[in-house]
Amino acid sequence: MLLSRHPWKTRKEAPSDAEAASHRLMLRAGLIHKAAAGIYNLLPMGHRVLRRIEGVVREELGRIGSQEVLLSVVTPGELWRRSGRWDAMGEMLRFRDKRDRDLCISPTNEEAAVDLFSSVAGSYRDLPMSIYQINTKFRDEIRPRFGLMRGREFIMKDAYTFHMDEACLDRTYLDFHRAYGRILDRMDLEHIVVEADGGLMADGGQRTHEFQVTAGAGEDVVVRAGSWAANADGARTLRAGADDGAPDGKDDAPGEVATPGLHTVAGVCGRLGVRPSRILKSLLYEAWRGARREDVLAVVLGDDDLSETKLKSHLGCGRLSPMGADRMAELGFERGFVGPFGPSAKRVRVVVDGHVDPLAPYVTGANRRDAHLARFRPGRDGAPAETADLRAAREGDLAPDGSGPVEFCRGIEVGHIFQLGRKYTESMGVSVQDGEGRPVHPLMGCYGLGITRLPAAAVEQHHDERGIVWPKAIAPFHAHLVLVSRDPALGSRALDLHGRLGAAGLDVLLDDRDAGAGFKLKDADLLGVPLALVVGDRAWRDGRRVEWVERATGRREAVDPSELPGRVRAFHGLPP
Amino acid sequence: MLLSRHPWKTRKEAPSDAEAASHRLMLRAGLIHKAAAGIYNLLPMGHRVLRRIEGVVREELGRIGSQEVLLSVVTPGELWRRSGRWDAMGEMLRFRDKRDRDLCISPTNEEAAVDLFSSVAGSYRDLPMSIYQINTKFRDEIRPRFGLMRGREFIMKDAYTFHMDEACLDRTYLDFHRAYGRILDRMDLEHIVVEADGGLMADGGQRTHEFQVTAGAGEDVVVRAGSWAANADGARTLRAGADDGAPDGKDDAPGEVATPGLHTVAGVCGRLGVRPSRILKSLLYEAWRGARREDVLAVVLGDDDLSETKLKSHLGCGRLSPMGADRMAELGFERGFVGPFGPSAKRVRVVVDGHVDPLAPYVTGANRRDAHLARFRPGRDGAPAETADLRAAREGDLAPDGSGPVEFCRGIEVGHIFQLGRKYTESMGVSVQDGEGRPVHPLMGCYGLGITRLPAAAVEQHHDERGIVWPKAIAPFHAHLVLVSRDPALGSRALDLHGRLGAAGLDVLLDDRDAGAGFKLKDADLLGVPLALVVGDRAWRDGRRVEWVERATGRREAVDPSELPGRVRAFHGLPP
Repeated sequence: MLLSRHPWKTRKEAPSDAEAASHRLMLRAGLIHKAAAGIYNLLPMGHRVLRRIEGVVREELGRIGSQEVLLSVVTPGELWRRSGRWDAMGEMLRFRDKRDRDLCISPTNEEAAVDLFSSVAGSYRDLPMSIYQINTKFRDEIRPRFGLMRGREFIMKDAYTFHMDEACLDRTYLDFHRAYGRILDRMDLEHIVVEADGGLMADGGQRTHEFQVTAGAGEDVVVRAGSWAANADGARTLRAGADDGAPDGKDDAPGEVATPGLHTVAGVCGRLGVRPSRILKSLLYEAWRGARREDVLAVVLGDDDLSETKLKSHLGCGRLSPMGADRMAELGFERGFVGPFGPSAKRVRVVVDGHVDPLAPYVTGANRRDAHLARFRPGRDGAPAETADLRAAREGDLAPDGSGPVEFCRGIEVGHIFQLGRKYTESMGVSVQDGEGRPVHPLMGCYGLGITRLPAAAVEQHHDERGIVWPKAIAPFHAHLVLVSRDPALGSRALDLHGRLGAAGLDVLLDDRDAGAGFKLKDADLLGVPLALVVGDRAWRDGRRVEWVERATGRREAVDPSELPGRVRAFHGLPP
Repeated sequence: MLLSRHPWKTRKEAPSDAEAASHRLMLRAGLIHKAAAGIYNLLPMGHRVLRRIEGVVREELGRIGSQEVLLSVVTPGELWRRSGRWDAMGEMLRFRDKRDRDLCISPTNEEAAVDLFSSVAGSYRDLPMSIYQINTKFRDEIRPRFGLMRGREFIMKDAYTFHMDEACLDRTYLDFHRAYGRILDRMDLEHIVVEADGGLMADGGQRTHEFQVTAGAGEDVVVRAGSWAANADGARTLRAGADDGAPDGKDDAPGEVATPGLHTVAGVCGRLGVRPSRILKSLLYEAWRGARREDVLAVVLGDDDLSETKLKSHLGCGRLSPMGADRMAELGFERGFVGPFGPSAKRVRVVVDGHVDPLAPYVTGANRRDAHLARFRPGRDGAPAETADLRAAREGDLAPDGSGPVEFCRGIEVGHIFQLGRKYTESMGVSVQDGEGRPVHPLMGCYGLGITRLPAAAVEQHHDERGIVWPKAIAPFHAHLVLVSRDPALGSRALDLHGRLGAAGLDVLLDDRDAGAGFKLKDADLLGVPLALVVGDRAWRDGRRVEWVERATGRREAVDPSELPGRVRAFHGLPP
């Protein structure tokens, strides 16, 4: 491509609302253009990156036998009503057509995939089935951010698989897990695969993993140790060290102590001279399933924080809100002095974190103003309770698999894979016949990959103060020919080289603009093609050479132009 | 691809609402799946056809130097308000986001292209610029029909070009014109390029052409002779033969004749013994530009019909409706006896078809009930009038370029190219600096191609009673291997052949399902891959051969499998 015939405009500055490095650099390098809040156009250079990413994804999904389809962008409301999600999808853009039918722009496509599946599959012989599409999605987020990283309109690769049994779903899930790893590896994206929380997507207890590209600008916090990793929100880490200092003596009865005005863990610890880990922190919530409320009392150790994600997941509820003062009064609880016992606690669902020892003595709120209860043993003195993992992971915790102490880092979620169970096939009433002719609801998996988020993640991980440093597999060009001479003879050499590299199957950009060397080299650094080939007077005079400059390492070498087609192909790992 | 691992379901019957052959066959062959009225999902076989079409389009547009971009599917209302089209686009799907901003799903993208252009181009040095995208569009048609042929959601290739002068626009317009021809030729689609009417898209008087794939099921009527062709709606054909029988004698005065109850041309002819071509047919319309009305009287010869498309185009109005009885009475016209003269005609805009001789005598309505005026000479006796081409083309007309008598045929509009002039750059206030530093509004062209309409057009033109007969360039596979033996040895031969053809860079479908030969061969005919390779007991026994069957011609031959990779590549015109 000749730049003299193609308008491409770089910018010295990005708009002030562009916070993330990738957003700034993609605007400055002329890859994207803002159409509206969270809606971007891809300019030619940006589109080239997108198509290379799509190419890698198609190859790897082809290898695991998934078939590409194209589901409609606009889907009928009726389909979402069948699964029960029409009202649950908060960010779905809904509207009505001229015939007054409900439609939406798909934010995801489980329903459409099940509908399509049911049109082609009738019996166990048709399974497993694996389909994917690369298509535009829309989620009407209130605060779109960071350019392509969290846009309202975005392109996603979404795959859906259907299975007769768990073993088959597990095999395919592993296929996708590995394919995602290969896709990210080919793009040189360092990433962590984390255990995640299925939220509303799946039946409870199903497996789900997120693929997080590590980057300081990432919105997600990941906790990891060795080969184990999890989203910090729901990470099932363990408290480090033995539980210390629990006074023994099993027959001591609980007794009230006065704690006037002391409604924090720190305050009570100071007053009673105990460690925070000997205090029980009791938190009251209202858990909502649609319009139905459940009152919940959650208990964690005094030096732990509650993970609302874990509590939600345990309860299987749609929404969780701290209990209001009115409801608290109705139930007879005293704010700041709540404890998991007595008549009030019997009227709510009590869930206790697994790190609380039911037989050990703790200090808890006395369910009376200005009082706590000492020597409270939950298993002996408390209301009936369930045990669950409720505490938020924190620095110093241990990985559950024995990998040792965890560390926290930030990531960009580029992929998310789910085992969905029968949630959608059951709710939409879709079944196939098994070997005995009985109808069964197939198991499903779904597998998302953020196609327009990937270039942003790549730029976050691969840039320097001069601009983008594209990974080879997704660069907009294989090489960037920079003509820095005004000698017409060299101009025609550069044009000739552009033609010969093109004939060797390489995508090459030739900067033949009427501009200075400094300007062109700065633009080349900003755009970040992995290899610049500088055609200039000096190297040419010194032996008819072209300067080979690698963007990532800065490595330079004077190269004979006749060697270039072969060497550029080798640089990109292409066959000779 | 192995059919045993990929669910693909053909159907004996299509739903009764599928009228067009292409719609029926694409449903029956398992290429598409209906999501809602006018909204279709593409199944794997259909998606393969789509991707091959996109490949041809990308190659040909690359050859003329157009750069691929991706504009957002959702565009802000603000952009459409700038061009003044927010209220004019009848089939646009509009909605509001959470921040209460107007958005729409793009039905076309002139506005977005101009906005993008203005972000990268500042001076004449940046022009010409040529960009295109392949993307989803939505038009909320009341009556979507014929499957992919007239869907509400569809994929379009839309290109936009920007120019400093007419000569440059003309050159690029010709480039696209030729590229479209090559694209359709490569797809083996017989087509006609017709002069068309720009409608609301362009400034008046600009060039625009439609690319019509000829097919009996087409919704458009095309009129053509030799190399000349036009959309029948606006075709500027000529009346055949000299204008005959006009009685001479220039000083005879007009005179009323009684025509009680005779308000049709035929009735008046019978009563007065004149040929229809000697009668003037006067038609009253209300022409609307937004809320502004203009009263119009249009005149054509008695044996011609008025083309409302031509009248609208001449008036440059948005909408045209026959004049209501109230307004007619207000102006003093008498229905059935209207004539283009007198006080009433002076109060309206009179437009006379160019085939009316202003100096010859005609019979016209007398603007009084039950009376006509004979010996009326429009140029002498009529109200002031404009002349325009208003008559609808009909059988027997002559082509305007001397190609002789025209014929009518039906077509499917797959492409439409427009010279837009400065309509959008002016209305949106976008300019670049010319050589003297003065701001000028660039000229624009736009070029649409119906990517999802093309497979439907191809099937309309290429099918028989057994199914689809795909053109080679867009077939879902290069070859369809049909295993019609239950001998495991032959099964593994077929699998081996599938592998070797794949290794030769060919896309091959292997029907290895556990089903009978007749069933499989019927499915192969329905799907319509250009080449079937039948692996069966007889040909194998008779000399270890595979049967080569060409779908289009039925030509059969027993072929040595070792020759197949080379011969299949040659059949498809691929290099060895």
